[in-house]
Amino acid sequence: MIQSDAKSGASGDTDDGGAAKPVRLLSRDQLGEIDEARRATTETRRVSVPALEDILYEPIPVLDRGFVRVIDYMGDDGAVVQAARVSYGKGTRKLREDEGLIRYLLRHRHTTPFEMCEIKFHVKLPIFVARQWIRHRTANVNEYSARYSILDNEFHVPAPRDLAAQSTGNRQGRGDVLTGAEAARALEILKGDAERAYQHYEELLNEREDGTVIDPDRHGLARELARMNLSLNFYTQWYWKVDLHNLMHFLSLRADPHAQYEIRVYADAMLDVLNRWVPATAKAFADYRMGGAQLSATGLAVVKRLLAGEDVARESTDLGPREWRELMATLGRDD
Amino acid sequence: MIQSDAKSGASGDTDDGGAAKPVRLLSRDQLGEIDEARRATTETRRVSVPALEDILYEPIPVLDRGFVRVIDYMGDDGAVVQAARVSYGKGTRKLREDEGLIRYLLRHRHTTPFEMCEIKFHVKLPIFVARQWIRHRTANVNEYSARYSILDNEFHVPAPRDLAAQSTGNRQGRGDVLTGAEAARALEILKGDAERAYQHYEELLNEREDGTVIDPDRHGLARELARMNLSLNFYTQWYWKVDLHNLMHFLSLRADPHAQYEIRVYADAMLDVLNRWVPATAKAFADYRMGGAQLSATGLAVVKRLLAGEDVARESTDLGPREWRELMATLGRDD
Amino acid sequence: MIQSDAKSGASGDTDDGGAAKPVRLLSRDQLGEIDEARRATTETRRVSVPALEDILYEPIPVLDRGFVRVIDYMGDDGAVVQAARVSYGKGTRKLREDEGLIRYLLRHRHTTPFEMCEIKFHVKLPIFVARQWIRHRTANVNEYSARYSILDNEFHVPAPRDLAAQSTGNRQGRGDVLTGAEAARALEILKGDAERAYQHYEELLNEREDGTVIDPDRHGLARELARMNLSLNFYTQWYWKVDLHNLMHFLSLRADPHAQYEIRVYADAMLDVLNRWVPATAKAFADYRMGGAQLSATGLAVVKRLLAGEDVARESTDLGPREWRELMATLGRDD
Amino acid sequence: MIQSDAKSGASGDTDDGGAAKPVRLLSRDQLGEIDEARRATTETRRVSVPALEDILYEPIPVLDRGFVRVIDYMGDDGAVVQAARVSYGKGTRKLREDEGLIRYLLRHRHTTPFEMCEIKFHVKLPIFVARQWIRHRTANVNEYSARYSILDNEFHVPAPRDLAAQSTGNRQGRGDVLTGAEAARALEILKGDAERAYQHYEELLNEREDGTVIDPDRHGLARELARMNLSLNFYTQWYWKVDLHNLMHFLSLRADPHAQYEIRVYADAMLDVLNRWVPATAKAFADYRMGGAQLSATGLAVVKRLLAGEDVARESTDLGPREWRELMATLGRDD
Repeated sequence: MIQSDAKSGASGDTDDGGAAKPVRLLSRDQLGEIDEARRATTETRRVSVPALEDILYEPIPVLDRGFVRVIDYMGDDGAVVQAARVSYGKGTRKLREDEGLIRYLLRHRHTTPFEMCEIKFHVKLPIFVARQWIRHRTANVNEYSARYSILDNEFHVPAPRDLAAQSTGNRQGRGDVLTGAEAARALEILKGDAERAYQHYEELLNEREDGTVIDPDRHGLARELARMNLSLNFYTQWYWKVDLHNLMHFLSLRADPHAQYEIRVYADAMLDVLNRWVPATAKAFADYRMGGAQLSATGLAVVKRLLAGEDVARESTDLGPREWRELMATLGRDD
Repeated sequence: MIQSDAKSGASGDTDDGGAAKPVRLLSRDQLGEIDEARRATTETRRVSVPALEDILYEPIPVLDRGFVRVIDYMGDDGAVVQAARVSYGKGTRKLREDEGLIRYLLRHRHTTPFEMCEIKFHVKLPIFVARQWIRHRTANVNEYSARYSILDNEFHVPAPRDLAAQSTGNRQGRGDVLTGAEAARALEILKGDAERAYQHYEELLNEREDGTVIDPDRHGLARELARMNLSLNFYTQWYWKVDLHNLMHFLSLRADPHAQYEIRVYADAMLDVLNRWVPATAKAFADYRMGGAQLSATGLAVVKRLLAGEDVARESTDLGPREWRELMATLGRDD
Repeated sequence: MIQSDAKSGASGDTDDGGAAKPVRLLSRDQLGEIDEARRATTETRRVSVPALEDILYEPIPVLDRGFVRVIDYMGDDGAVVQAARVSYGKGTRKLREDEGLIRYLLRHRHTTPFEMCEIKFHVKLPIFVARQWIRHRTANVNEYSARYSILDNEFHVPAPRDLAAQSTGNRQGRGDVLTGAEAARALEILKGDAERAYQHYEELLNEREDGTVIDPDRHGLARELARMNLSLNFYTQWYWKVDLHNLMHFLSLRADPHAQYEIRVYADAMLDVLNRWVPATAKAFADYRMGGAQLSATGLAVVKRLLAGEDVARESTDLGPREWRELMATLGRDD
Repeated sequence: MIQSDAKSGASGDTDDGGAAKPVRLLSRDQLGEIDEARRATTETRRVSVPALEDILYEPIPVLDRGFVRVIDYMGDDGAVVQAARVSYGKGTRKLREDEGLIRYLLRHRHTTPFEMCEIKFHVKLPIFVARQWIRHRTANVNEYSARYSILDNEFHVPAPRDLAAQSTGNRQGRGDVLTGAEAARALEILKGDAERAYQHYEELLNEREDGTVIDPDRHGLARELARMNLSLNFYTQWYWKVDLHNLMHFLSLRADPHAQYEIRVYADAMLDVLNRWVPATAKAFADYRMGGAQLSATGLAVVKRLLAGEDVARESTDLGPREWRELMATLGRDD
């Protein structure tokens, strides 16, 4: 179980500045389909992962109306070991040995055994997030088609605490959070424009969200055209399938502090899934990828001088001010 | 040279129902950069294609404000032959022999020699088109980043002749063109919403398109957030690089009558580029892929019965009504 | 169950011209590991396919000492439908509707829903077959490493009925089967050279297949070097994971009469697996890909003339003699 | 120019333990084709790289009979910058600014702009090296086909200085070089078996390397079968095309001390090509990838304790003996 909120389909409140109103994440029909899928179990000779079975099909809430659901998976930590050894059986010898091999593989970038595990997600996400996400090409995707179907009237509006100003130092970063009138006006614009866009989308289609016709004397614009009136904060959804190696690559880039907050929250939710699915791999990943550091040759030379007891000044190195700052931060000397 | 319009950067009129107004496709600075690039030539030992050099860097207008530009290329028809033979020289023996080999390779799906040629485009296209395009994963892409930069105030509005109604027979198709009041209202909505979206985008950023600050007492929302207010008809741009095999795959799907019109016009422009670049390959492609037909085993059995002089009724076959119609259309018997 | 031979691990005889001797395909230890894996079942909420579970982990014999084993799988026919609809539940409405959708997707080359299913094989195959196979890049592979480990003394020798002469008409094809003294000499060479190569491999390593040292006073050449003395008919093995779309692409090329016999027998074994795993998809695949025909524009024009009752002579068409022959064969008029 | 040896096609001697005999790397015809290709220059509007044009088409000798030749290329350092900025012109502002941007992109793993450059090689290499190489899937390959053609009588025999023993400490590594009688015997085996394999290959084919028939009364085994008698040290050749990002990934793994020597020499030759082609990228690559170090979270914690002046014992850390040794070596404290 994820949490009771998820089970009941309510995503809590959208933290929209006071008038907290519980939103229903999924319709009754959808919840019914999910419950039915969860209840139907079968026997299998394949490897299973109980901790992942626990949350199979359940929506993990992300942002105001998004979610991540695990739909299917193949393999576990043992499958990585099995493939690395090209063995005949299920591949697990002793837990400790297997963990050591997994650490070795990850440390030395022997990535192909991790490609032997696969996971499939159902994700609901704003279009501007989907556009970043899709740049990861080594995955399989089936997106809800707005050429065939009418999109739901669901759009993302940032919670007030996420209404960040443009950073002044970093061209692609965020600065402080907007407050007061400026924040209120921003929310007003984002909501107002999205609501109008959807009303006009229905008018263009000559059809309401529920499928009823608005004006029997009009034809309605083709769906593939009308969708162009929706803004980038509208939600779309897709099935996304990826192997374990490429999932970790995705997470190392998107669960990173440099990633945009709105995609990072999806990556964070998937990090939790990773821990349930392949705990030994997830632990090695946290050590070697997420928590580690890449030093350049120039940076490594500085570390060696520091270790030799030298009092190194930036000007005596080949590092620019920015790289120097980054190195000092990595070494915990950024006071 | 493509055409004088392209050279002067004017895309003609947007055919917006009367008030035709010439739009400048590119700024004076951009045209200057392109002219400079076109004037700078060097000597090379590499294979060159004069017909493609003629249009290098020039914008080929597509839709109301989009374009396709060829930025670079590698190889020609001879490079396909050279790779197929793994030869030491430039690979061309006799033109006729080479054409025969290219036809053979394409007919028998020996696709790897076509991967040995590469082409790079600069494309300006509406976001809803970009979202279809990006599903072709075997290509390299660098898109203009709205996290770093402010998007231009340029959005697509269909020409009146392209304002198609939803098809009644085909869930993802188009029907007749809207006319009269319904058409006028659709254009009014699309333009009005996009204009308002852009004004609000500037207000959210607290910055105008030209980079000037609107209100020095406000902070402005982060660019990565403000962009979510723009609608899917806004233009984005990217560098897109692809090999010849995957370009043909893209064209076979997107220059197809089933493709959405707004991406098909890009594919059509690139078909012209294909003819300039690799004429022998383009000819074989037209014969085997674009102009041919794939028959199913069931369909082939029907053709054999027809050839034997039988008067075949659909009910006597294993084809459903839809497949039967498609087959008859392929065979030119759809009267 | 595959067949009793497979279960007992005996691949029957190698049909080597008389002296039929049963060969043990797998060692007692390996069979034990497989049995253990087969006996361990768990409950899962995932979709399962009983017909595939039946043969899970079992070796399907191919060639004289090769095999294909299904190790794991994800999804079924319903998962294709589920992805195409981006639905919340398990995706199956009515069997007939689902089959219709699968046929539609395959006919119109909507390939992404088929990428949502995945299968993992353990394959034992001669190195010269592995070199063809690996050219399919959209798959995941872990091969047994001859840098770390010593290869088994197992090599492929063709059955006498497969000792084909070089084709005289087709540069890459096969002609009649060799017989008599020429056949006997060919087998003698292939066996003799492979046996000597393995003895010398052991001598170079200074280590026998069973791991015992030959001469304690020598060092033994590095494994990564000694392996270069083995010939291309030695067996290697790998884990090979692929999605359903790319598996069908592999099968359409390798279960084809133009494919080399020694890889085709692997593809044929996997076609049987396809039928167990996703019967509706396999049926549509047989109709649209394996049993159908691709007509060129030129070929289609000929078909139309024939259908109109014309007595078409090749000289009156744009088809060369070879393409004409191929077309007539396709139409069943090659008498 | 690479070196006069390369120009004359002679690879010097094979250093085979005394009987040094100059080998001709390429035939007179092949050298003629290369010279012709080098003499034919054209004018182009594309970006050119003079330092790379200097060696275009020329064979760079590798191992005893292998080579690497640059056949074509697309883009330069400026093209990386141009793509990162999605700019209209050729992309170079000021050299210093461009170098800074390239360093930034590489440091922050913004890899897509590097995919905008492409290079094509013609490589001649032993089959056992080709089998490692082909595991890099994000590249395009056309290999010489032994189904169609007869392979040359050329095989690799290690130089005596490369006859390494198996490492005792590292299961996949090399130890000391074999000497005396053991070395002589190893060379004798490798040469003798390869020579016999080729003679038998000709006998199986009933055809000599020069295309003449051996015995007009025999048929000859099909080429696709006869090749299985050749050993893994025979040379094959292919066209290999890759983008700059994936080339650097290949080089970071294969120009690494952990890579097998026989593939590393190819990677080293290509590192020289990288320096000619994209000097700014090559410099950043040397700093951030080849010369740098990846620290794990655990390793980084140790570095911080050392920098704080602590005298850290391995037992007080979470590092195993092997990782500890690797870390101390990285930090230059492995005395």
